[in-house]
Amino acid sequence: MTSTTADRGVIILAGGRGERFWPWSTAARPKQLLPLASGGRTLLRATFERALRAGIDRDRIAVITSQDLREACQHECPGVRIYGEPMMRNTAPAIAAASSTFGQESALAVLPSDHAIDDETAFAADLERAFALAAREAVLVTFGIRPRAPETNFGYLHLGARLAERLHRVAQFKEKPDRATAEVWVASGEYLWNSGMFVWGRRTFFDALRAFHPEIAALESFGLGGGPEAFAQALKPRFEPLPSISVDYAVLEHAPNVVTIEAAFDWDDLGSWGAWARRQPRDARGNVTWGSAVPVDCDGCVVVGDGIPAAPLGLRDMVVVATPNGTLACRIEDSDQVRRATEAVRARAAS
Amino acid sequence: MTSTTADRGVIILAGGRGERFWPWSTAARPKQLLPLASGGRTLLRATFERALRAGIDRDRIAVITSQDLREACQHECPGVRIYGEPMMRNTAPAIAAASSTFGQESALAVLPSDHAIDDETAFAADLERAFALAAREAVLVTFGIRPRAPETNFGYLHLGARLAERLHRVAQFKEKPDRATAEVWVASGEYLWNSGMFVWGRRTFFDALRAFHPEIAALESFGLGGGPEAFAQALKPRFEPLPSISVDYAVLEHAPNVVTIEAAFDWDDLGSWGAWARRQPRDARGNVTWGSAVPVDCDGCVVVGDGIPAAPLGLRDMVVVATPNGTLACRIEDSDQVRRATEAVRARAAS
Repeated sequence: MTSTTADRGVIILAGGRGERFWPWSTAARPKQLLPLASGGRTLLRATFERALRAGIDRDRIAVITSQDLREACQHECPGVRIYGEPMMRNTAPAIAAASSTFGQESALAVLPSDHAIDDETAFAADLERAFALAAREAVLVTFGIRPRAPETNFGYLHLGARLAERLHRVAQFKEKPDRATAEVWVASGEYLWNSGMFVWGRRTFFDALRAFHPEIAALESFGLGGGPEAFAQALKPRFEPLPSISVDYAVLEHAPNVVTIEAAFDWDDLGSWGAWARRQPRDARGNVTWGSAVPVDCDGCVVVGDGIPAAPLGLRDMVVVATPNGTLACRIEDSDQVRRATEAVRARAAS
Repeated sequence: MTSTTADRGVIILAGGRGERFWPWSTAARPKQLLPLASGGRTLLRATFERALRAGIDRDRIAVITSQDLREACQHECPGVRIYGEPMMRNTAPAIAAASSTFGQESALAVLPSDHAIDDETAFAADLERAFALAAREAVLVTFGIRPRAPETNFGYLHLGARLAERLHRVAQFKEKPDRATAEVWVASGEYLWNSGMFVWGRRTFFDALRAFHPEIAALESFGLGGGPEAFAQALKPRFEPLPSISVDYAVLEHAPNVVTIEAAFDWDDLGSWGAWARRQPRDARGNVTWGSAVPVDCDGCVVVGDGIPAAPLGLRDMVVVATPNGTLACRIEDSDQVRRATEAVRARAAS
């Protein structure tokens, strides 16, 4: 292959409807658009800035999101192409469509926009390594995360042959396990979390996609012409009939040429208020606060007041979030169950 | 004396700024204007209706409140005279001013507007007894409540000579005690809570007031002329120089002719979210809910959503209140400390 750094590109996936931060997260402001990253930046902006600091020019960055979030994404990622999906079809069609807007010789990194990574130097070094690898070989590079706990909310990568330091073949993609399975996997040392970040040559990606989903791979020829404004409208007839399927299921679980770099950088998918809080600075009593947060005699709480004062009184290890959309109060340890509150509120509003 | 039932009148005190139900209670909608009474009525409306059911005509009822709450009070008490205080001067001047609008031979009941009483039949009977007593003798009749607990938030009446069943002279008015003192008093059986409800002849009241505070008693001649609209403006020059003092301090602690009827009706001053909850119906899991309340997997909680969904998740014995003014979350047992949250939010807003 002949790829150079000039052929590198980044696709940022920003179409998620993340509701784990309800009531702060809404349809109009999903997780990636909340200021959950270090420095009070949105996760999307932090992802964008990480790509810039890794040496990617902004004209080599594309964001793909839902049509209604394009403007908000543009605000976070100035000077970047923002593509709107005509409808939700999960990541495989979205990545294929966005990839088609890059030149055929491109090496592309695919980055979710709603994860937290603070060690930008280590990230840039690992990304460099992945790009170099993808330029040299027809491999699908994933970033694996050494598990910190037997998480059941992540997919796992079962490591195959060791190729170099922190570089393995992937023997098998594993879907979210149950708790007991996760414990066995983590104890074995042979499994990494699947971070959902990938690097590959555009050709390598479409070749793999074509083998398993030729109808999606047919998007390869789509986007070399028109710009972001015309994108969704032009894409619609070709996108609509496609299956809604993740790139994991569509390609990575089946492809033989998947490798993984064990990340040297910190990583968290911020799956809950509690996960976010673990990365935030705390006040003298261990509280994480944002906005109009007025904890009184509280310890170890997460307190967010978005436009409305949130005033927990005498609490410990609780989450209290006040917004015009709703108020959440739960123990931090239950914050991964926020969906139950969201669904209850939605059901009540519909009744 | 020659007083008849036609001379009876009721003064409802509705000038309080009750903030114990923050964030639901606000300056524009203090406690007496919240739907905290049975049947979802405001406490003020329930007080008004209690007076009606005790046989008082609405043209013999006067509400005295702050100028800015007059309209809201009128809405709750249709057909009643609503007087505005030109400024806050506590209950002695307010009662004197309101009393002056009744005829000289009137017997007057003074009723706070922010207490809960559900047994209207027993209330009417005790009120009848008090009116009859006040018509017969120059006494200041108070209603005492048999203590349910050694409360430190109430004044107490130390019982003197027994005059009849559930009727005693008051040996002494006692200010709010400390906990140890309250325990001794309650155990002795010789003390009742001071409910803040009174019945007396207008003449008897002004005579007593004149003995201790002639400057306030001078209001006796004030209000026989003009109507509610002109009241505050006309009252202002006479009201402004008066001391801000409660009727307890100004009269009842000093007067020799105070008696008390031990109430046969239920009574609660609803001093906290917890006190309110004790009188409310509960759902199958023991939660008290109002408005957009969406408790998920909660037990024994108080959940109020006023325009904003309140969604506590997995909690027990907690108060969660969501309003556009603020969000409160605390244990029910701490709900008597809400003032600390209110003050913290106010301090933050001012900073």
